[in-house]
Amino acid sequence: MTETSLRERLLVATLPAEERENGRRLLQALACVEDKLKLVERELETRTRSKTPTIGLIGEYLVDGGGKRIRPALLLLSAQILGYTGDRDVRYGAVIELIHTATLVHDDIIDAADIRRGRESVNHRWGNELTVLFGDYLYMKSMEIALDEGDLRVLRVLSDVTLEMTEGEIIGSEIRGSLDISLERYLDIVRRKTALLFGAACRIPTFLPGVETSGDTLWRYGLALGTAFQLQDDLLDYTASEKDLGKPVLSDLREGKLTLPLILVLPDLSRAERKLVDTVLRERSFTSVSPDQILEIVAHHTALERAREMLEGYASEARALALSLPECPARDGLVLAAEYAAHRRK
Amino acid sequence: MTETSLRERLLVATLPAEERENGRRLLQALACVEDKLKLVERELETRTRSKTPTIGLIGEYLVDGGGKRIRPALLLLSAQILGYTGDRDVRYGAVIELIHTATLVHDDIIDAADIRRGRESVNHRWGNELTVLFGDYLYMKSMEIALDEGDLRVLRVLSDVTLEMTEGEIIGSEIRGSLDISLERYLDIVRRKTALLFGAACRIPTFLPGVETSGDTLWRYGLALGTAFQLQDDLLDYTASEKDLGKPVLSDLREGKLTLPLILVLPDLSRAERKLVDTVLRERSFTSVSPDQILEIVAHHTALERAREMLEGYASEARALALSLPECPARDGLVLAAEYAAHRRK
Repeated sequence: MTETSLRERLLVATLPAEERENGRRLLQALACVEDKLKLVERELETRTRSKTPTIGLIGEYLVDGGGKRIRPALLLLSAQILGYTGDRDVRYGAVIELIHTATLVHDDIIDAADIRRGRESVNHRWGNELTVLFGDYLYMKSMEIALDEGDLRVLRVLSDVTLEMTEGEIIGSEIRGSLDISLERYLDIVRRKTALLFGAACRIPTFLPGVETSGDTLWRYGLALGTAFQLQDDLLDYTASEKDLGKPVLSDLREGKLTLPLILVLPDLSRAERKLVDTVLRERSFTSVSPDQILEIVAHHTALERAREMLEGYASEARALALSLPECPARDGLVLAAEYAAHRRK
Repeated sequence: MTETSLRERLLVATLPAEERENGRRLLQALACVEDKLKLVERELETRTRSKTPTIGLIGEYLVDGGGKRIRPALLLLSAQILGYTGDRDVRYGAVIELIHTATLVHDDIIDAADIRRGRESVNHRWGNELTVLFGDYLYMKSMEIALDEGDLRVLRVLSDVTLEMTEGEIIGSEIRGSLDISLERYLDIVRRKTALLFGAACRIPTFLPGVETSGDTLWRYGLALGTAFQLQDDLLDYTASEKDLGKPVLSDLREGKLTLPLILVLPDLSRAERKLVDTVLRERSFTSVSPDQILEIVAHHTALERAREMLEGYASEARALALSLPECPARDGLVLAAEYAAHRRK
């Protein structure tokens, strides 16, 4: 990957006009890990290279299509804050991104998604068959790299997190299509689905050789940041355009998933309004009910405002935790990441 | 699981009439690990117990539906041969069975199988969605148990084997529907698909505390046994009845998979015969060609006899390797397992 494409990816990922200053500052803050992010990219390329054509192809497809590499960036920033100067953080950055990609790939089957990261999803292009295997392959590759490092404590963190993530997906699939979701249950799913891996990314550097740290500020930072990140994802499903997001809006509801905005206002809905939401969840399409009818309900109950308030709470917590760390460019990166998580548009 | 059901399972798994004596002897040989096999069963039950209803249910379904527990039995026999007296072998037995079950579960999606082990398959009953997640869950549970034991060498063996197995499935899916498979490529898939996990089951006990061993007889035994086991599986697809096997005969071909018997005689087929086989592989059904037409080709070229000869070679190798180990009841178990692998009817 070239330097330009990394910059572009990050620029595009920030708010365009009024937030451009934030974007510029985030880029500056990430400059301190930019070289290492390139090494993570190289590690990902090397590790998914294969004599087996299919593995090579899908690997290319996924690595080139790349996400924002937020998790590796967090890991590298955390390692730098802790004064780590070796290169194990690069490998663990690749591990974290491989786990994340594996969950995305298997999620595509679960969601029967046609589009992912603005492009045709892996399962739509390759079928369920190869998609299952490729997700497995990515999980196992991540384990292989982590095993090479030989630290059982890190392996345990990774094992715990991936297990909880999978359980979270299973719980999520149990309640799919249902209106009956408490805020507590929803937040537990958010924790498993997104927050834990963010937490792991920030925590793993505390186990790196030569690093001495007391306290779990980075772990708690990662959890709060990941929660804010996921809640913003939920909000974007209501507010973003198809072009920005790379997927259709209101797609969560269409997949039978109730997210924060509606969960928060659920007790306030009229019988008729509940019925409309319930119909979309059951039909898993906007056949009998239009997206606009749902958006009206959301607007009437100020659901987005209430969800944003909650999201800002988590982002502020993350920001405060980051600010409690020793001042350095990498620390500023974590602070700005909290702002980015809460305000990103894709 | 009760003692009776274990005995029944093993009895049923042996040849009924002429081979009943073999079955009885295998049962006797397994008596030396029967208590530990029950502990493996308990470990599997405990580890798939969950507060999440779906996990509990699928766990029950899989554990109750149980396979023959061949891999844990091999692991326990190998540990006993090496003089191991602790209880880590029980946990590793569960690990190996969980990995095996995880591959079966994901295979169900790949094969779009309706039937597995004589019952409705997991994906047919629960859908692709939960099946993906449940396979992931089983893989991760296996890793969790292995991590508890804290031996990086064993973790490495497990990681290598599962990665090679997944690559094998991907290679298998690449050549699916194709007539163009060399014997070498086919045997590589057999190694990855079955032999490696058998090998790992026999090899892991060499890493148990207090065990000192030189040489890799158990590892080579496991590889030869696993190969014989898989080749017998291929043969059973041609020779077994639907009732015995728990799945329709010629199902491999119907799924676009060419196996040993036809691969061996491929160079001898007439143009017309090749075309018939090719049609089934491409149609993935017996629409234009009948099963009997395929069975005629197989009989005409003595494909089953030639495949059996090859299979007996691997079984003999396994038997000879087992016989080279110190004499003891567990050693006899391995010898009889080689006979069972080559002659089992399901």
